[in-house]
Amino acid sequence: MSLSLRGLLVGRPVANREAEGRKLNVLTGLPAMGLDGLGSAAYGPEAALTILAVTGSAGLGAIGPITWVILVLLAILFFSYWQTIAAYPNNGGSYIVAKDNLGIHAGLLAAAALMVDYMLNVAVGISAGVGALTSAIPVLHAATLWLCLGILAAVTLMNLRGTRESGVAWAVPTYLFVASLGGVLAWGVYEVMASGGQPHPVVRPPEIGKATGALTLWLLLRAFASGCTAMTGVEAVSNGVNAFRDPKVRHAHGTLAAIVIILGLLLLGIAHVAQAYGVMAMDQTKEGYQSVLSQIVGAVYGRGWFYFVTIGSILAVLCLSANTSFVDFPRLCHLVAEDGFLPRPFAVPGRRLVYSVGILFLAGGAAGLLTAFGGITDRLIPLFAVGAFLSFTLSQAGMAAHWWAALSGRRKPDEGSSQHSTGLDRAKLVINGLGAVATGLALAVILAAKFLEGAWLTVLVVPCTIALLRAVRRYYDGIDRQILRDRHRRIDLRRHTPPVVLVPIKRWDRLARKALEYALRLSPDVTALHVMALEGPDAEDHQQTLRTEWQECVEEPARQSGLPPPRLEFVRSEFRSMTAPLLRTIQDVQRRSPGRPVTVILPELVDGRWWGYLMHVNRERRLRARLLRDAPNVVVSSVPWQLQAARPEQAIAEEEPSRAPA
Amino acid sequence: MSLSLRGLLVGRPVANREAEGRKLNVLTGLPAMGLDGLGSAAYGPEAALTILAVTGSAGLGAIGPITWVILVLLAILFFSYWQTIAAYPNNGGSYIVAKDNLGIHAGLLAAAALMVDYMLNVAVGISAGVGALTSAIPVLHAATLWLCLGILAAVTLMNLRGTRESGVAWAVPTYLFVASLGGVLAWGVYEVMASGGQPHPVVRPPEIGKATGALTLWLLLRAFASGCTAMTGVEAVSNGVNAFRDPKVRHAHGTLAAIVIILGLLLLGIAHVAQAYGVMAMDQTKEGYQSVLSQIVGAVYGRGWFYFVTIGSILAVLCLSANTSFVDFPRLCHLVAEDGFLPRPFAVPGRRLVYSVGILFLAGGAAGLLTAFGGITDRLIPLFAVGAFLSFTLSQAGMAAHWWAALSGRRKPDEGSSQHSTGLDRAKLVINGLGAVATGLALAVILAAKFLEGAWLTVLVVPCTIALLRAVRRYYDGIDRQILRDRHRRIDLRRHTPPVVLVPIKRWDRLARKALEYALRLSPDVTALHVMALEGPDAEDHQQTLRTEWQECVEEPARQSGLPPPRLEFVRSEFRSMTAPLLRTIQDVQRRSPGRPVTVILPELVDGRWWGYLMHVNRERRLRARLLRDAPNVVVSSVPWQLQAARPEQAIAEEEPSRAPA
Repeated sequence: MSLSLRGLLVGRPVANREAEGRKLNVLTGLPAMGLDGLGSAAYGPEAALTILAVTGSAGLGAIGPITWVILVLLAILFFSYWQTIAAYPNNGGSYIVAKDNLGIHAGLLAAAALMVDYMLNVAVGISAGVGALTSAIPVLHAATLWLCLGILAAVTLMNLRGTRESGVAWAVPTYLFVASLGGVLAWGVYEVMASGGQPHPVVRPPEIGKATGALTLWLLLRAFASGCTAMTGVEAVSNGVNAFRDPKVRHAHGTLAAIVIILGLLLLGIAHVAQAYGVMAMDQTKEGYQSVLSQIVGAVYGRGWFYFVTIGSILAVLCLSANTSFVDFPRLCHLVAEDGFLPRPFAVPGRRLVYSVGILFLAGGAAGLLTAFGGITDRLIPLFAVGAFLSFTLSQAGMAAHWWAALSGRRKPDEGSSQHSTGLDRAKLVINGLGAVATGLALAVILAAKFLEGAWLTVLVVPCTIALLRAVRRYYDGIDRQILRDRHRRIDLRRHTPPVVLVPIKRWDRLARKALEYALRLSPDVTALHVMALEGPDAEDHQQTLRTEWQECVEEPARQSGLPPPRLEFVRSEFRSMTAPLLRTIQDVQRRSPGRPVTVILPELVDGRWWGYLMHVNRERRLRARLLRDAPNVVVSSVPWQLQAARPEQAIAEEEPSRAPA
Repeated sequence: MSLSLRGLLVGRPVANREAEGRKLNVLTGLPAMGLDGLGSAAYGPEAALTILAVTGSAGLGAIGPITWVILVLLAILFFSYWQTIAAYPNNGGSYIVAKDNLGIHAGLLAAAALMVDYMLNVAVGISAGVGALTSAIPVLHAATLWLCLGILAAVTLMNLRGTRESGVAWAVPTYLFVASLGGVLAWGVYEVMASGGQPHPVVRPPEIGKATGALTLWLLLRAFASGCTAMTGVEAVSNGVNAFRDPKVRHAHGTLAAIVIILGLLLLGIAHVAQAYGVMAMDQTKEGYQSVLSQIVGAVYGRGWFYFVTIGSILAVLCLSANTSFVDFPRLCHLVAEDGFLPRPFAVPGRRLVYSVGILFLAGGAAGLLTAFGGITDRLIPLFAVGAFLSFTLSQAGMAAHWWAALSGRRKPDEGSSQHSTGLDRAKLVINGLGAVATGLALAVILAAKFLEGAWLTVLVVPCTIALLRAVRRYYDGIDRQILRDRHRRIDLRRHTPPVVLVPIKRWDRLARKALEYALRLSPDVTALHVMALEGPDAEDHQQTLRTEWQECVEEPARQSGLPPPRLEFVRSEFRSMTAPLLRTIQDVQRRSPGRPVTVILPELVDGRWWGYLMHVNRERRLRARLLRDAPNVVVSSVPWQLQAARPEQAIAEEEPSRAPA
């Protein structure tokens, strides 16, 4: 029942060898890895224009140069990540690059920044999409949070099913977005050129407000920093190279190139068309607000059905850009967990070959953020870009260090790159160094501009996360110190005296007999224990019955065979606990025969049906957990009595569907 | 952590021998068992007057006779339950009485009816109290459901802590209710007598409306049936005799007498004073509604502070009358579970000597009812009295059958009753027979009057509950047939060949060595299994390392001692499952050596801290559960590696606080 429900939701288990088939190519990689990056086009230019708006139409002239600076930075990032993918074909996210080249401290800083950013990205993406949806359909406004959580649940489930399926599901809105927005921008650029730079808008954009501020350098810097949000998500591919089909580097390069080129063209088109048509960002808190893209589509095409298709696809892409985090966050956690900085479950692929624990953790964290902030985007935005630019900076500083080390001969040149030359390395060093400085500067500006608005929270959370990661690592180091010490000591092969065996029994039935017969295989030193939890005449009757049955079924046969019979002992338990009397008995045994291991054999009724657990007191399970924790030098054996005949073939078929198809 | 939280909420464990100290006497029994019964005075007379209201002031004359009939019935119930308590000193609720005298079918019918009624009583009591509270303080109205659930949680927690504590906590409102309402009524009766039957009300009750119907027999019957709700809760004592201190029959009799006498006096006083002052029930849906008791207190005393004390205590008693269900429902479930008709956990006393599972089940069910009905009393009321009167009828029919059997000599007279005589038995038979007929009639009237309003739901739920109870019993019967068959066959004492032992190991560490050394104690036939879940160069490196370590630490010492070394086998797992390869290996072993048991030894890291579970993949636990369910003829042994040194003394002290005080 529970199994089939899971099967229905998540799907059948996926075999290792199916991994190739589930992996991404460029066509499926673009939606899976690029949604976040491409979706940034919807808010990046608008964010820059919002800063410039105070200067009135004067600022509109600045968007061109700013976009070109951003494109240069984007190009630097592109080359940097291109190089990173080639140098780190087994997932080269900021964590790995920073760890390898700058040390583990930098690596953890990058990891913590990325984790925070991915989680924020989910919350921001979904709440932005839902916010846009509810401003289009105001009646849904009251259900904002539930809509957010519903979409989150759907995205989570898609990702638990596996990368390829979710890649396909996101493909439609992604390509629709690229085609419709790209089409509008291309048509706009053509109109601008055809009209000699003076196009006639189909729907005239609202008048640009009067200037209230001057076009200072600080304003330009802030506009640039805000516009930089257009680049978030570009790192996704480098962190997920292993998700690509072989040859994975080629597919990853292709996907990265597709994302950057499309994003670059969109940004350029937006800047060009906005400038030519006189489109400026409006104040979102004022009545009659329209987004920059909405104004552009209206100006170029008008308000026909295609307007709604374009705006709809923008909404969908914003909403689904959360998916990029779902692809990358679990992978990042897997890498960090493999290094021992996150709990082991993060490192283990689930039945669908995805890192289910990471997906569920991300979903839980995002749900917490959405609930805490009531699904309202505005409060989340200022916390957002800090992590991304911190990891950009670390990643590029790491790559710069990488080439520096290669140049100074401390690292042998990358294998596989045959046309390796010092000159090329020097160029790479320059590109990455430039990128590091540029993104570092952008980070400084973002921090300065957004610190009081909420970025301080990120600044607070990141070191806490790092402390937690380090604590996890210390935990595992402590365990390893314990269980790897003296590991090469030779094993003791002598057959020692058998263990002292204790068998708690409730009454004399086949279950007790099975456990006792097994105990007698292990050791001649067997004691059955009956714990009397309740008092009164019934308890004494029960004791007498058990004693008689024991004499008949155990002691007499023993006497006849001339064997020493196993003992039956009665223990009173004032507090109705099984654990305490058993622990006392174990202590007694260990006092009498020190060093000999004690084995407790628990007879256990096993009902495999999902509701079977509810029908029993399940004392054995709790008892086993307690003994394993609290009894020194003890082994706990469970002798099951299966209420349904065991069906190993069926169990195997459930775990490995392709071996024995149903 | 989790332990101490539970300790804080629920309290330390309670020993069996402390049971006497926790049991009830008359003083603590009255609040514990009588709240429901006494609280009925607040709605019983009003319910009768509501029916009579259509006849205008003409109906007011009928309340006296109807109350007397109810008092006669109450007296019959009193004698009946007095007799029941004497005849069934080990809890003589309707379930036991009906089962013993009318057979198990009648018993289950009574049990199902009572269970439904107890659960409804909790929901009705709490929602009525909260309803009254929120009509006094309208600002709380929006929080109705949360208030209901909060009170439910508080009542639940009190009851989980144990009967005596909760008895003391309820004592204040109960005695305040009895004293204040009793005082008002006594003063009213004195005023009536002093004024020669024409008292002057301090606050004049509202005018009685004009008659819109005639005083027919059917109307009188319906008024009587509605007034009978005043008797619900009277059975509580007979079902909880075991909760009383020794001599429990005397304490139970005293409590029953106190409840019935106080209830009778209150009913009589209400009827007398209402008639004399001209107080009639008002329409609750109309503006300016006042309850009958509110009118009476106003008329006799006025609207001073004492008015608010009285009304406040009525609210509290209504609200807390849920507690009676919390005392009796778990006890009833315990009895039914001991007969195998409910899952075993219902039969087991928890750490505070109360039946925790029953309490939690009741709380869950009531929470469900409250949530489903939004905490609105009106929708629940019609479902309510059916169960109580069904169980009254069955209980008294059962007692009648009891005396009939005694008279016809089929049952020996009750032990202990020395002055046993046929005449007395005949009188008892008459009383119980009369009671059965009267309550049966009342039940028929209630069903007829309330069927369409909601009683049909109860009529539907009761047989479903019975079907469920029977299914549970069949489940346990099936188990007993399995494990008690041939139980008296003698045990096989020969020391058979030792089991074949399988030890799954992840890597070569002290944990693996400990498990292997234990395995070698049990059997010379030991195989270590390494399941390779992932592929790639890392996996092969790992395999090679393990093989080398195995040669060094296991095989070489074996060769030197001339012993056959345990084997190391590698198994590939395409689906990353540990279970399937292990099940296949077990099948192979059993095919090679049929009949020999297989023991799987699982090395397990044990972290006793509450968060330790989160740090590990916990494959062993799932593997153990799967093997116990799906592998035929297998025993699963856990060899723990305790990350914290085991501290048995502390564990014992936690379970048995008085033995080793902290």
